[in-house]
Amino acid sequence: MKIAVFGTGMVGDTIGSRLVELGHEVMMGSRSATNEKALAFAAKHKGKAHAGTYADAARFGELVINCTKGDGSVEALKAGGQALDGKIIIDISNPLDFSKGMPPSLIPSLSNTYSLGEEIQKTLPKAKVVKTLNTMWCGLMVNPNMIGGGNHTNFICGNDANAKAAVKKLLNEFGWKNENILDLGDITNARGTESVLPIWLRVWGATQNGAFNFKIVS
Amino acid sequence: MKIAVFGTGMVGDTIGSRLVELGHEVMMGSRSATNEKALAFAAKHKGKAHAGTYADAARFGELVINCTKGDGSVEALKAGGQALDGKIIIDISNPLDFSKGMPPSLIPSLSNTYSLGEEIQKTLPKAKVVKTLNTMWCGLMVNPNMIGGGNHTNFICGNDANAKAAVKKLLNEFGWKNENILDLGDITNARGTESVLPIWLRVWGATQNGAFNFKIVS
Repeated sequence: MKIAVFGTGMVGDTIGSRLVELGHEVMMGSRSATNEKALAFAAKHKGKAHAGTYADAARFGELVINCTKGDGSVEALKAGGQALDGKIIIDISNPLDFSKGMPPSLIPSLSNTYSLGEEIQKTLPKAKVVKTLNTMWCGLMVNPNMIGGGNHTNFICGNDANAKAAVKKLLNEFGWKNENILDLGDITNARGTESVLPIWLRVWGATQNGAFNFKIVS
Repeated sequence: MKIAVFGTGMVGDTIGSRLVELGHEVMMGSRSATNEKALAFAAKHKGKAHAGTYADAARFGELVINCTKGDGSVEALKAGGQALDGKIIIDISNPLDFSKGMPPSLIPSLSNTYSLGEEIQKTLPKAKVVKTLNTMWCGLMVNPNMIGGGNHTNFICGNDANAKAAVKKLLNEFGWKNENILDLGDITNARGTESVLPIWLRVWGATQNGAFNFKIVS
């Protein structure tokens, strides 16, 4: 599948590289067509990966994965424009606020009674936003079998059932078993999954190990 | 041990009853000395349990467990007064805000960049506040072996290391193994554990089963 990855950081590189490994063709989108990290990513996966602007990537991708930093996600996706209409946007970003010290808190206007996932869906009403994978380190997103036999929980939410089903298939490619993917319902549930970050960051701080995930035990 | 349980709801009754079962002597504190639920609790455990005001309970308890609703916790503990000086307060409350619809959000002034645990510690600077058990259904708090062989995670945080060690011993009595009690550090980490509620509530909503807990898999 042709997939656009928005964002050139560690998360975008990890997700994009895994997609290439799985046989997908990837364009990494960023603000500029000559972003060094995106060009390096394309060069690393020569012939299977490309670099472009957000608008280029939005046109290229049959599906889009938002790996931008939360405080820039809305602007980045807006730059994707009408090319995103009707497409699935997998949103794995978090509205982290680094201005109040460490560990980061959540951006007040995008947390508690609202969420970044909802804001993205509101900004692009014709796109199908599916929030998932945002509650863990990117290494685990694309390789859940790294720990616990892959038996830990990935949350998913979004308004479109078909879009969630399609995203689940991509998650299966990453190694996620359906019984470990918990569908919370519509996109308002991003308020819950984004609120995982404050505890995630503190577990990381206490254990000094980011390669962990939460598992629902019942 | 003589233990004060603040709060007469399901959580207070569950915790108090388990403490009596374990051989402790309990006083359930509430706003009034004639609270019907507290009197019923005392009658149910005749000779081992008592009812009183918050001030009565604060004087009675060598250790205090705050099981009040989050929006009333500070007022309740203030009513305990100077009798709480030097004592351990186990805080299992959450700053839930039911005014914005269901599921509840968090009280803005007591979340994200602050927490109820911190507010209680600030209100009672001479008490030793230990936040724990607030991330699960009360049935599991006192009986973790109900699910998953007891192997799921209970967070603990607070400023006083000796107080946390003492609380861990009480958690051991409930059935918690030390390897499943994760010390996050000082009381500011209540910002993390209280932020579990938004995801907890949504998992509960999606699964219709409150008898679950999160386990850190690494």
